[in-house]
Formats: sequence, C-alpha cells, structure tokens
Amino acid sequence: MTAPHPTFKDVTAARERLKGIAHRTPVLTSRKLNAQVGAELFLKGEHLQRMGAFKFRGAYNALTVMGPEARAKGIVAFSSGNHAQAVALSAQLYGCKATIVMPHNAPKAKLDATAGYGATVVKFDPSESKREEVARKLVDETGATLVPPFDHPDVIAGQGTTAAELFEEVGELDYLLVCCGGGGLLSGSALAARAMSPKCKVIGVEPALGDDLTRSFKTGSLVHLPGVPATIADGARTICGGDITFPMIRALVDEMVTVPDAALVDAVRFAMLTMKQVIEPTGALALAAAMSGAVKVSGRVGVIISGGNVDAAMLRWILTDDAERAATPPA
Amino acid sequence: MTAPHPTFKDVTAARERLKGIAHRTPVLTSRKLNAQVGAELFLKGEHLQRMGAFKFRGAYNALTVMGPEARAKGIVAFSSGNHAQAVALSAQLYGCKATIVMPHNAPKAKLDATAGYGATVVKFDPSESKREEVARKLVDETGATLVPPFDHPDVIAGQGTTAAELFEEVGELDYLLVCCGGGGLLSGSALAARAMSPKCKVIGVEPALGDDLTRSFKTGSLVHLPGVPATIADGARTICGGDITFPMIRALVDEMVTVPDAALVDAVRFAMLTMKQVIEPTGALALAAAMSGAVKVSGRVGVIISGGNVDAAMLRWILTDDAERAATPPA
Repeated sequence: MTAPHPTFKDVTAARERLKGIAHRTPVLTSRKLNAQVGAELFLKGEHLQRMGAFKFRGAYNALTVMGPEARAKGIVAFSSGNHAQAVALSAQLYGCKATIVMPHNAPKAKLDATAGYGATVVKFDPSESKREEVARKLVDETGATLVPPFDHPDVIAGQGTTAAELFEEVGELDYLLVCCGGGGLLSGSALAARAMSPKCKVIGVEPALGDDLTRSFKTGSLVHLPGVPATIADGARTICGGDITFPMIRALVDEMVTVPDAALVDAVRFAMLTMKQVIEPTGALALAAAMSGAVKVSGRVGVIISGGNVDAAMLRWILTDDAERAATPPA
Repeated sequence: MTAPHPTFKDVTAARERLKGIAHRTPVLTSRKLNAQVGAELFLKGEHLQRMGAFKFRGAYNALTVMGPEARAKGIVAFSSGNHAQAVALSAQLYGCKATIVMPHNAPKAKLDATAGYGATVVKFDPSESKREEVARKLVDETGATLVPPFDHPDVIAGQGTTAAELFEEVGELDYLLVCCGGGGLLSGSALAARAMSPKCKVIGVEPALGDDLTRSFKTGSLVHLPGVPATIADGARTICGGDITFPMIRALVDEMVTVPDAALVDAVRFAMLTMKQVIEPTGALALAAAMSGAVKVSGRVGVIISGGNVDAAMLRWILTDDAERAATPPA
C-alpha cells in the first residue's frame, strides 16, 4: 500500500510503471504565444495522451499498484468524463472488468467512448440517486475496487508524472501553471515541482464559476459549492476538493487563480487556429490564465494542457463569432 | 542556377539550407486510424510547419538560392493562400521586401496574416485583371524576382524536404500519399521517394472537383480546367499543372487519385476529434484518400498532412452535423 499522502518517490515509481504504456507527450511551443504573453511558454500536451487526457496516468498507476488479485475482482469508477475512459482503457490493457457509473443523460459520445474501451456502463438517474451510492453498491456486491477520480494517492502519483516529464525535458522553470478540478493533477504536479525545480512557483487554475479549491486555499478550510458549477470546463465542475488533495495543495502550491469562461474560449480558439491543436475547455485553464493575465508570468513558464476530449457541438460554439456566441448557450 | 528539372541532389541541398530555419515537423500516428484503414500510417505534420504549411520550405529555399543581390531588389508573388504567407515570412527572415498580389476579395484573415509577416499586399480585382499580369508589371517596374507557387525547381526541391525527413525518420515505406494542387509538393516528394525508398508507391491525391493533374496524368497531355474548381480544398484549386511539375509527375509518380469533398470533411473531423489536430481541407487530401479507400493501401504508409491554415467559419461548417452541412454551403 502507498501512504495516504503520496511523495515524489511515488511519482518516480509511477513513471517506471507507465514506461512504454503511457505516451511521453510532446512539449509544444509557439513564437506567437510567447510574444503575446511576454514569457517563454512550454506547453505539455496531454491532449495527445492515450484516451486524450492525463487521466490515463493516474488510473493505470492505480490499477498497477492494486495488484492482480484485486484487478481480477474488477474495477468500478463513477465519472461522466475523462476518468471514465481512463479507467476503462486501463482495465482493458490489464484484461480485467471495468464498470463505469455514468449519469443516464451523459453525452452519447462519452458513453460510447467508454463502452468502446470494453467497459460496462451502468447508467443512473442523478435526480433519484447519488453516483457514489450506485458505485458503492456495486463494490459491496462484487468485491470490485473503486478507483476515485482524484482523491487517491496512486492516482495523484500517476498524474504527477506529467510535470515530471516536463521538467526532465525542459529543465527548471520559473512558473508551472496547472488546471485544477479536484486537484489530483495539481497535487501530483506540485510534488514533481518541489523535487525537480524547487524555486518554481506552482499555480493552480480553476474556472471562476467553479472556484471551490481557490476559496478553500484562501480561507484554509474546505469549501463546498452549493451545486454543480455551469462552467464550460466540464472536467473542473467538482464542487469540493479532496481530503488528500486539499492539504497537499495548501502545503505545496504557491497560488490559486481563476479564469472566466470567456478566457477559456479565447485560449481554445488560439490553440486551434494558431497552434493547430484541439484542446478541451478544461484543458485550456492553465493556458487561459497565462494568456489573460490572470496570473502575471515571466521567464520560463510550464503550462499543462490537460486534455483534448471535446465534442463537435462545443467546438462549433467556441468557433462562433463573439456576438453570436454571447447570444447562444454552450452546446 | 539550378537546372530546370530538380533532382534529389537539389532536395538534399535544400535540406541544408532549411536546417535550423524550417521546423522538422513531427510524424504523428494513431492506433484508431491504423485499425480503421488496416495499415500502419505515418502522418507527416506540416500543419505544424512555420506559417502553418509546407509552402515555407519551397519559398525559403528559392529565396536562398536566388542570392543577396536578387533579394535586395525585392520579391513578388501572387497567391491568396499559403504561398503568400510562405513568401512573406521568408522575405521577413531575409530582411527583404515582399509584395504579394492578392484578389481584393480574399479572406481578411489571409490578407492580415500576409501583412502580419511584413509584406506589402497589392489587391486587384480578378474580374478586371489577371494576377499574373499584375505581378509581371511589378516585376518589370522594380526588378523584383517573382517566386511562383509551384512550377519552379527551387520551390519543388524545397517541398521535397518534407518527404525526405519522413523517410529519414521512419525508414522505407510501401506507399506515400501526397496532396496535389499544382504538383510542387508531389514532384518534390517523388524525388525523395525514388532516392530514399525506391519500391515505395507514390500516389498523388486531388480533390474530385479539381482533378486537372489526374486527368493530365491519365491522358498524357496537360489538361486545363474551364474555371476555378469549387472544392473546399482551397489550396488545390489550380486549374492546370506546371510545365515542370507535370512531366516530373508523369515520370516519377505511380498513380493519381481523387477524393470527393465529403471525404475531406470526414478526414478533417477525424483529425480534430480523434487526433486533436487542426488541418485544412487541402491538407487532408492524402489522409482522406487512405480513410475513404480511394486508394487501397497496406503495410507502411506515409501520409503528408500539408497544412493547417483554416478559418473558424470553415471549421464550424466542417463540424456541423451531416444533414445540416448538406443544406448549407461551405463558409
């Protein structure tokens, strides 16, 4: 068993486990972006990771650590987003059974993608039951292991391999900007930064509409949002940080900032039209913070692009002219 | 001076000139794509080239070969597309003056991008005068040198460096699929293939609506289309191959095929939603040929993605559902 709070040693161990399994994603740069921001930006492209997001790292690491006996009893996860596909793909690679609990009204593309990796999708009605309860029932009945989306030491250690690769490739940095939903990627990234680039300022970025961890960071106690935030950053709609991630973020992260959804639209458009990369709104949080000035950066700046799973309807909305977009709700 | 018909030696010389100037673009792969096509595909990503297309290679090579005296008198080009930006950027890097002749109704994004590289844009009314004549007049008045978009040995040799890099990186191939407008990229690619992978079948791909070189290839004499073809592959709207490119294609290319615009839409969508890459319709010609079965490929297949300069309106149209798209003309 890994200790409840992972350390950099766990990140290093996760790197060994992911070798030859996860992609070592490329670091992207843009002269135009550097000129616009006034700093040298290094974008770690996790939208090019297997299944399209960093989430694969944490899920695969967790499945590896749990061992063959636990895996044989199956894996359960609840997620309507990238974590679902990450667990499904990891289970497929291990040849074990995955059951993913998803809201019955989740986008068809996401239901299909998860089923496409061979997982059993169990739908539930969010107005009638809580997904945690549905998942817990499955675990109790089958002896399967629940892999939580962020608040788990092996998941956090896996996510930390992203930043570790970035530091290994480009050396020490002045800033590292990391998108933040439940804080798994941010906690893991901070572990890597503290060990590999001790002077680097680590900044977590949340959508302004879903600023639970920013408020928690500033007040010192875990803030719960009253409902699911309506941000287009659908991977950062968490209403509350984790019992493991929140203390790690308090201890290891320098600052938390937020960006409005409009800044996410600008960043996704820039990535598409200038850098020719498709990134999802959540994946653009850190880039948007740099581009919008939500955090003033200088020198050498790492920016984690966390994922690229976005459907055609959302991309169309993002590509609409500003005036028309303002008059239309997101897809 | 380079000989009128370039050879592989000219491609090699161009590589030396482009070293540290042009990007060595990445080779992209996709498990999903391979499974769908039933072959191992290697996509050479020239949408990630400087200014967003392979055209930079040929333009910069031509400006280098012409020498400082000619460059000092200025450069002229006529183009409403990627060649305009390629010449503008090359001239900017050499600190010489570029004048680009563009139709007055060219998309504002393209006019702005060209001017953004410091070029002087001269607009003309295509209903009143021919762009060749406007450009010729500029050349006569100023002593500037005209850099043609494809039918020039140094341009062709520069474009050939794309395929040369691909073969160097992945080794010999069974097929090489190359998009074809005027045939500069195809001619140069064929030179590289014949030297570096002699058994490789080189296939040129045109839009079905702009099939001049396919028809020329099959009939043996240069076919002129009656008017500018209405394909969404705006970089392949040439009405006729070149005096240099056509004989080279006849001599060095194995087959010419065409794809309908609908196959380009499918390929661009796949690139965006699965590979997270933004490519322009012209840049998707070769990929569309492989995906649609327009050419039956097997084994190891090189696919040149030629560019990624596409505006938001066209991307929105491509991302529209099939039924709605069929009812709306392209942007």
